[in-house]
Amino acid sequence: MGALTTLADRSVAKLTEEEIIRRVVQSLADAAPAFPEGPGGDCAHLPTTGGRSIRASTIDSVILGRHFDAACDGIRAGAKLVNRNLSDLAAAGAVPSDALLSLVIGPDVDATWLTDFAHGAGRAAAKAGLRIVGGDICRGAHGSFLGTLAVQGFAHRILTRKTAAPGDALFVTGQLGGSLYGRHLDFSPRLAEGEWLCGHGEVTACTDLSDGLAKDLPGLLGPKLDARIDVATLPVSDAAKSLAKSDGKPVLEHALQDGEDYELLFAVSADRADLLEASFRKAFPLTPLTRLGTVEAGTGLARDLADGEPIKVRGFGHFA
Amino acid sequence: MGALTTLADRSVAKLTEEEIIRRVVQSLADAAPAFPEGPGGDCAHLPTTGGRSIRASTIDSVILGRHFDAACDGIRAGAKLVNRNLSDLAAAGAVPSDALLSLVIGPDVDATWLTDFAHGAGRAAAKAGLRIVGGDICRGAHGSFLGTLAVQGFAHRILTRKTAAPGDALFVTGQLGGSLYGRHLDFSPRLAEGEWLCGHGEVTACTDLSDGLAKDLPGLLGPKLDARIDVATLPVSDAAKSLAKSDGKPVLEHALQDGEDYELLFAVSADRADLLEASFRKAFPLTPLTRLGTVEAGTGLARDLADGEPIKVRGFGHFA
Repeated sequence: MGALTTLADRSVAKLTEEEIIRRVVQSLADAAPAFPEGPGGDCAHLPTTGGRSIRASTIDSVILGRHFDAACDGIRAGAKLVNRNLSDLAAAGAVPSDALLSLVIGPDVDATWLTDFAHGAGRAAAKAGLRIVGGDICRGAHGSFLGTLAVQGFAHRILTRKTAAPGDALFVTGQLGGSLYGRHLDFSPRLAEGEWLCGHGEVTACTDLSDGLAKDLPGLLGPKLDARIDVATLPVSDAAKSLAKSDGKPVLEHALQDGEDYELLFAVSADRADLLEASFRKAFPLTPLTRLGTVEAGTGLARDLADGEPIKVRGFGHFA
Repeated sequence: MGALTTLADRSVAKLTEEEIIRRVVQSLADAAPAFPEGPGGDCAHLPTTGGRSIRASTIDSVILGRHFDAACDGIRAGAKLVNRNLSDLAAAGAVPSDALLSLVIGPDVDATWLTDFAHGAGRAAAKAGLRIVGGDICRGAHGSFLGTLAVQGFAHRILTRKTAAPGDALFVTGQLGGSLYGRHLDFSPRLAEGEWLCGHGEVTACTDLSDGLAKDLPGLLGPKLDARIDVATLPVSDAAKSLAKSDGKPVLEHALQDGEDYELLFAVSADRADLLEASFRKAFPLTPLTRLGTVEAGTGLARDLADGEPIKVRGFGHFA
């Protein structure tokens, strides 16, 4: 048996996040069911015998220094933990039900900041009808704070990734990029839109944007499909434009790669796409909706409609 | 809005774990349902419409340096994470269903240790019929490792704490104390016993022993009942006896206060206690069972049968 910590060449820092997940899931062996009941989507999808017969199950964390900084008020950090998870339920079209909250708290954490965090989490949960039914607290290292939330919701059918077909039309809600300017803390998860999409069988696949469109598009489609999208007409946020001005990078790079958009990206059967688009706009007149392009047979790439070239994705970072 | 970290006098280090939990639950406000559907037990108990009509829901973590040390092999650490949670399901008499796994991994964690951890978790889960359906990984600080598991199980009725009545008989499975000698890593959660107890309506309350009998007895009974127990006949483990020899503390102190016993502590209606005891011994001939004493009206104390004096409990530690 090896020791826990190790020299650099045997450490997890040599691996990408995807490799670590693959190894962990392989090692779980028989305990991990196959997708979509097991790992591989925004949620796990568990059959039940109730009215809404699919239980969608997901877990996510916020860590000080990674998902928010020490200057962030507790209310916004707590709301972000809840809303990150609710965005995964939205991608599954699930109605929020219940959640468990685990906190690892450094001894120097301000007691009022902590109650603010719980207050922000509770308010975001109550707004969405999510009940926080239990939890656990542990002492962490000095200067550390971690919140983890495990969430259950219920849906009428399995709406997930990797289930689109060639020819499907691709859509995205909202505007992309620049979430660092505040939206990564203050977004509203697209729960109503997700539930509506789940109720429309012609929606063949759905995910929420967490890593940026360029990476999440292949994640939506899986390894045997490509996306052909019109990059020139991407819905770019004002924040992405400001950020591009200040850092000199192309505005499209921000729209494609910034991450933490928490918008819904979904595919619709070709022959129903026009009708669904019109119905969506009627149902959600305040939610921007953009038709990005189409799905085609391929190898898991996002290609530019103009020249067919793969859209450049920032290299998948190592874990260190 | 206050900053996250603070000077000592405003920090959580001034509070006990119980005070922190109380403040967090209060701040969650409307999002946290009342016990037993919300916080306050080993699990939350959620009504469903399925065959086993209660979903029991719980979350727990293992942290390097707190629940295991860097010399612990990954397989045992992974098994401990799963079995800690399964022990909470056992206390609810619930059959394990599904779980979500969150890992926060320092960049210097050995990649093989990590897969051992997942292997140990997967094996413990598969043994109990628990499926690990999803999860999340994040990068943590150097030298850190944290695993959190959120678990769902199903039961036929709500079996929980704080529901015993005066006159009930008190029982405990197994032997107490000295878990530091290895049992805290290598225990088997009492799932079969818990499910059996849940099937017997005369079992009025149940919990698992995590903090030691002296603290968990008041936890089982709540603030309006006392336990009157025969301290002289407590089932003391061999490990507790060895530990007492080596550190010079009374063996009973180890049996009452060591924690991490992961045994079941439960109450049974007085008029059915003899019969239930006999049935239990027949159903589980290899599981030690000890009748500890009785429940009486009171104020949340564990009293010695011999002299009625409250059993000394180690002072509730501050969070620092």
